[in-house]
Amino acid sequence: MATGLPKDAVRDIVARALAEDIGSGDLTTIGAIDADAQCRARIEVRGEGVIAGLPVARQVFLALDPRIEFGELMGDGERVSPGAVVAQLSGSTRAVLTAERTALNFLQRMSGIATLTADYVAAVQGTQTRIVDTRKTAPGLRLLDKYAVRVGGGWNHRMGLFDGILIKDNHLRAAGGVGEAVARARDAAHHLVNIEVEVQTLDEVEEAIESGADIILLDNMTLGDVRDAAGLVAGRCEVEVSGGVDLSTVRGVAECGVDYISVGALTHSASALDLALEIVDD
Amino acid sequence: MATGLPKDAVRDIVARALAEDIGSGDLTTIGAIDADAQCRARIEVRGEGVIAGLPVARQVFLALDPRIEFGELMGDGERVSPGAVVAQLSGSTRAVLTAERTALNFLQRMSGIATLTADYVAAVQGTQTRIVDTRKTAPGLRLLDKYAVRVGGGWNHRMGLFDGILIKDNHLRAAGGVGEAVARARDAAHHLVNIEVEVQTLDEVEEAIESGADIILLDNMTLGDVRDAAGLVAGRCEVEVSGGVDLSTVRGVAECGVDYISVGALTHSASALDLALEIVDD
Amino acid sequence: MATGLPKDAVRDIVARALAEDIGSGDLTTIGAIDADAQCRARIEVRGEGVIAGLPVARQVFLALDPRIEFGELMGDGERVSPGAVVAQLSGSTRAVLTAERTALNFLQRMSGIATLTADYVAAVQGTQTRIVDTRKTAPGLRLLDKYAVRVGGGWNHRMGLFDGILIKDNHLRAAGGVGEAVARARDAAHHLVNIEVEVQTLDEVEEAIESGADIILLDNMTLGDVRDAAGLVAGRCEVEVSGGVDLSTVRGVAECGVDYISVGALTHSASALDLALEIVDD
Amino acid sequence: MATGLPKDAVRDIVARALAEDIGSGDLTTIGAIDADAQCRARIEVRGEGVIAGLPVARQVFLALDPRIEFGELMGDGERVSPGAVVAQLSGSTRAVLTAERTALNFLQRMSGIATLTADYVAAVQGTQTRIVDTRKTAPGLRLLDKYAVRVGGGWNHRMGLFDGILIKDNHLRAAGGVGEAVARARDAAHHLVNIEVEVQTLDEVEEAIESGADIILLDNMTLGDVRDAAGLVAGRCEVEVSGGVDLSTVRGVAECGVDYISVGALTHSASALDLALEIVDD
Amino acid sequence: MATGLPKDAVRDIVARALAEDIGSGDLTTIGAIDADAQCRARIEVRGEGVIAGLPVARQVFLALDPRIEFGELMGDGERVSPGAVVAQLSGSTRAVLTAERTALNFLQRMSGIATLTADYVAAVQGTQTRIVDTRKTAPGLRLLDKYAVRVGGGWNHRMGLFDGILIKDNHLRAAGGVGEAVARARDAAHHLVNIEVEVQTLDEVEEAIESGADIILLDNMTLGDVRDAAGLVAGRCEVEVSGGVDLSTVRGVAECGVDYISVGALTHSASALDLALEIVDD
Amino acid sequence: MATGLPKDAVRDIVARALAEDIGSGDLTTIGAIDADAQCRARIEVRGEGVIAGLPVARQVFLALDPRIEFGELMGDGERVSPGAVVAQLSGSTRAVLTAERTALNFLQRMSGIATLTADYVAAVQGTQTRIVDTRKTAPGLRLLDKYAVRVGGGWNHRMGLFDGILIKDNHLRAAGGVGEAVARARDAAHHLVNIEVEVQTLDEVEEAIESGADIILLDNMTLGDVRDAAGLVAGRCEVEVSGGVDLSTVRGVAECGVDYISVGALTHSASALDLALEIVDD
Repeated sequence: MATGLPKDAVRDIVARALAEDIGSGDLTTIGAIDADAQCRARIEVRGEGVIAGLPVARQVFLALDPRIEFGELMGDGERVSPGAVVAQLSGSTRAVLTAERTALNFLQRMSGIATLTADYVAAVQGTQTRIVDTRKTAPGLRLLDKYAVRVGGGWNHRMGLFDGILIKDNHLRAAGGVGEAVARARDAAHHLVNIEVEVQTLDEVEEAIESGADIILLDNMTLGDVRDAAGLVAGRCEVEVSGGVDLSTVRGVAECGVDYISVGALTHSASALDLALEIVDD
Repeated sequence: MATGLPKDAVRDIVARALAEDIGSGDLTTIGAIDADAQCRARIEVRGEGVIAGLPVARQVFLALDPRIEFGELMGDGERVSPGAVVAQLSGSTRAVLTAERTALNFLQRMSGIATLTADYVAAVQGTQTRIVDTRKTAPGLRLLDKYAVRVGGGWNHRMGLFDGILIKDNHLRAAGGVGEAVARARDAAHHLVNIEVEVQTLDEVEEAIESGADIILLDNMTLGDVRDAAGLVAGRCEVEVSGGVDLSTVRGVAECGVDYISVGALTHSASALDLALEIVDD
Repeated sequence: MATGLPKDAVRDIVARALAEDIGSGDLTTIGAIDADAQCRARIEVRGEGVIAGLPVARQVFLALDPRIEFGELMGDGERVSPGAVVAQLSGSTRAVLTAERTALNFLQRMSGIATLTADYVAAVQGTQTRIVDTRKTAPGLRLLDKYAVRVGGGWNHRMGLFDGILIKDNHLRAAGGVGEAVARARDAAHHLVNIEVEVQTLDEVEEAIESGADIILLDNMTLGDVRDAAGLVAGRCEVEVSGGVDLSTVRGVAECGVDYISVGALTHSASALDLALEIVDD
Repeated sequence: MATGLPKDAVRDIVARALAEDIGSGDLTTIGAIDADAQCRARIEVRGEGVIAGLPVARQVFLALDPRIEFGELMGDGERVSPGAVVAQLSGSTRAVLTAERTALNFLQRMSGIATLTADYVAAVQGTQTRIVDTRKTAPGLRLLDKYAVRVGGGWNHRMGLFDGILIKDNHLRAAGGVGEAVARARDAAHHLVNIEVEVQTLDEVEEAIESGADIILLDNMTLGDVRDAAGLVAGRCEVEVSGGVDLSTVRGVAECGVDYISVGALTHSASALDLALEIVDD
Repeated sequence: MATGLPKDAVRDIVARALAEDIGSGDLTTIGAIDADAQCRARIEVRGEGVIAGLPVARQVFLALDPRIEFGELMGDGERVSPGAVVAQLSGSTRAVLTAERTALNFLQRMSGIATLTADYVAAVQGTQTRIVDTRKTAPGLRLLDKYAVRVGGGWNHRMGLFDGILIKDNHLRAAGGVGEAVARARDAAHHLVNIEVEVQTLDEVEEAIESGADIILLDNMTLGDVRDAAGLVAGRCEVEVSGGVDLSTVRGVAECGVDYISVGALTHSASALDLALEIVDD
Repeated sequence: MATGLPKDAVRDIVARALAEDIGSGDLTTIGAIDADAQCRARIEVRGEGVIAGLPVARQVFLALDPRIEFGELMGDGERVSPGAVVAQLSGSTRAVLTAERTALNFLQRMSGIATLTADYVAAVQGTQTRIVDTRKTAPGLRLLDKYAVRVGGGWNHRMGLFDGILIKDNHLRAAGGVGEAVARARDAAHHLVNIEVEVQTLDEVEEAIESGADIILLDNMTLGDVRDAAGLVAGRCEVEVSGGVDLSTVRGVAECGVDYISVGALTHSASALDLALEIVDD
């Protein structure tokens, strides 16, 4: 996919979503709609936000019937308002109506994430800070949730446990301290992966730098402590802030000069963008 | 499962969620934690809400290592406040930490849905109206999303396209009217399934009743029209309201005497409940 | 599919059937037939019956090689006699011969079911009674078995445990009686599903009606009791009869004025219709 | 499995059968039966036949709940009459009732096949002829269908296209004759596989022997021709008969001195054996 | 596939290989290459050997993007030298580079196997002996490993445990001797499968012949014993030699007049053929 | 798994390998071995090397029958000689013999890789250089191939395209140069991933350092150029060498002071270690 999403993985997610909804058959369309009926339809916006997921929605319709014509009227990332039409489609009425809800479920969730991300990104505009996501995604939908963050102008953190080392509070308790934990992880890691370590006090910041960590994660610190920590680091490694940041406080944190602010809410608490599919009369 | 959830389906959802997060391996625990380290931990609440998903969280940990002891300190449906401990667990430190985020992702999402549902249910308390969910769930997670609605005191609508007939606006446009659509659907349907039809005007309400529909769905009507429609129906069939209802308006709608109010936000826009896993020192 | 069958589910059934037969390769065609040989063939009828499954047979051949031309000479549901040709095909000889048995296995089984169903439907012609199937289908083939019943002129009962409530003898023993069981099930069920309850005596018929069941299932009753039960119900709910009905007795039961007669034999004991694929010389 | 059935393959077949029936949940047991109710039950026979499939039925119940106690009261292959109890079980009422139909569907189908096979085997008793099955099995169930044939006293033909070479009429037309086809297949085949070739005339019998085929398949020949063909072969290779054989004619064919008679009806047209599960009161 | 490989099985192997490499996405191409960049490339040979696996390599590229043009410049089985170009391709740069390593991994392994096989086949040229493979293949790749042996001019042994009977030393110990083991296996086997029995002494050779085994496997015998064994058999059954044979000794064994020499090294110890994909400047 | 291997992924690999070998059933053990026979066996070494894969072999046997007792007599990584016994096992004779070849195929391949890796590691002993693997693994077996490299004392490179950025020659041609490619990749990458860039001349070395690459890959350079490049880098970033290195040249390269030498042969051309399973008489 031109989106950089792994094609087969997305196809599997779409297939499972459709199977979950269709099960043994769509009783309503089979009962009420002629097998050979054709229709034209459009996907309309009913809220304010950033559209994300059109290539996934397209794939939902094509999975039902590859002869459906799905025409995007914009690309992912565009800001939309009520009344906007994001896509037009035509084809088998049965297939369009059977796919409708699944397609919208993807599109509404992803657009909701992109919209919330864009709000955070706007809030830190002009600073050096990147808004990044977390692993707090809907189980099974991480690829799409994180793609939506990128569409909204945010940046991804690692995709999972496999492509980055992030030594958190619980690891430190089990491993016996920052220095020991970072050294052990460095020895085990391959050379294309970085090591980030979570700290909660200014003392630990210094310890983390000495351990050779590539990035320091300031967890749930006060604004003052974040500022002091950033000053202490003084560019010797990168700094990420997480925890207790919302839209009203994010700019203040960014202005402390940190590199990254990670926000779980982007993917675990975004509201869906209101969208609808309407059949169009000729 | 005692929850009534289909065991194998939940096991597959859990397995995919873990695979998504773990991928080729958890670099951090493999690097920083001894293979034979053991720990005790607990899952703590950091917000206000209704807990849901403990049996799923249990399954996540056991999928990683069946020797983990997972002790629930309450059942799904309990109302919790910051500081509450919902479960204690002990076992392999590596397994506990590798499973942590996936378990919390399920638990936080499901508890968020149960919490929002409970708010809606409380708002209509004392009326005859049931709060029901919709098919606007996270793709792949419908079984769990709808279970969480039940935990929050709500009721499910149909699970998918396969176990109920709901003739909506788009179907009517394609099928040529209420009477025709209901008659066709009735003829095709098996005898254990009901037929619901969406209407948008009072004229259509009468038409729907005459068509023999079992339930009428009033879509995006004003409060006044809902009240008139309910009066018109006068118990001849059941009445559901959907669209444009929020926590501030739901009681007014319920007091019109409708049987069901369906709320998409329960599953597409609930905020996650804040929860955390903490390793406990002995 | 124009058949209303869920496309992906059928594709999976076909893929598994082919894998089961082909395994590590078709030794005979690889050994004896040129890789680039082309052929024309036809599927011939060698018995009397109703054809069902042509869209599935088509899918079997196309799964082997999408370039095969598969031309149906009739639609599912047509009554056929020995010598009739139901489809013509042309393409890679290897692919045609490798797919042959799997395609015929589907077609013969489905046509056998459609044929037996049509016999039952003919036997009750002119009455108000619908012949319906049961869940006594070949494991893994329920969608196709039930489709074949529809092709034969019958009607489906629920597809599975998920789309209808049927409280049977064993449930009643465990739940403590008709009234209690129906009330509990009604409370748990969503509003698009009906409740059917099995009874074995006339006393239970009255109890079932009072419980508010939507349909009463008369199980293994004598013809006299069926007649009395139907009279007792007097249209207050629907009535289904099951058990001990065969082609010689079905009309008598129908004439008692029941709504549905369910026949397990349609799907568990139908004989295959004899069909063959013949390569055609040019 | 002690049955020689591949364990994982059977587990997959059972899992798919349960998923097909349970789908999003068993509405009836969830609604009407307590989550912690326990029961005892037994599987009773209601027809005459040979029991087959008890290890599969056991697996169905254990797949639902591994704590169910499933006690077989006999082994597969035993001849049973109405009233016989083939197994007793106890455990979660919900699990027992949810698994019931799927378990019985396997058991009834497999017992039906074993019963019909036993009839054919009895009919040729005292001759040298083995009754063998074909590839005319229910798609997806071949392993179980063929196991049931063995239980009934029959013998299997090849399992699929991968473990034997059977050059049939259609192959001969495409390959250009018996000699050419057998020679080519022999050259391609590995040395642990035999080659069988189908013939329709006595001339072809001689040709087949000269080609070096290991077995000759006499297809749809008259009894006289079978006798002549067997005489012509005179032990130079093995002889199988297929086509147009039923219970009334099979002994005559066997007495011609053929080695194998293959009967498609064993697996495509056997009637299910009537069985039922009954909850037992204490 | 014209190769006789089961199409769906190969597609699954390719899909898993790609998923294993791509996981959550190809960071390098997504980062460094434009989504719409196009390229031309070729696959070049950098060693001496026999090419095998081009149809599999093609499938890898097409799985990434069906619009890639993949032009084979030769067929599998051709002998190649450094500098040879085996295929040209053009299409999406991202897709070509993402697929590159997986395609080469298949092609290099399969060509390595074909090359080693060709060496063994050349070594026995002019004798009656066939070089055959074993079940000592890379787990999950047996179909491709054995195909590569055929491409190299060798012959396959059975594909797995399901399509041939080979009674080895361990079976004999458990079964109680050659005669008993062969008789039991013959009784259980279907009539299209042969029985081979492994022997280690000349005494056992005679015993094996008397048991009616179709093939005798001489395991790890000295050259002298192989010669004596072959003489003893004198054409009464086929003879295979395995164990302790390498390129320097294989001809001597063949000249003893055995039918088959099986060589595990063909598939468990072949070195990869060196191949590379090069983007071509226009 | 204590090995750090993802448990479910390994279970799937094992299940597929067993299915590939067993297919529709193990004809030999079903035919020749009693269903209730029990045996003791051991796995013996017949070559010189480093053992790897015992936890995988254990899983193969347990997958066949969880009651098999599998006792490892050493851990992965031990150096072994002919005659050594690496594991003892006891249980169902059928299960042991059906699992034998699959278990050995894993163990022999993995031990072969560990052995070759250990040779390379020994050759550079005393230098600062780490021997690392590549993505040139057997398709579907990468997790196990790379685990075996670790067992042999080597280090892993990235697992796949998803957990590291390696800009190679082909990427550079498509992206328009080192500086541009590294800058673009850096911008797209998350902050826990490093960037490595391949260079072929000393000029490019300087360019790579200036681009901010974390690691430079010297591809197919002469020993002299490697030495010069290492001098030029002078610790400003890490240096990896790949291409054209074998056991006779690897130490010389290491002594140039490079950080990593990657060797494709470790996983694409290692010879299997000779191992055998022997049933033990009591």
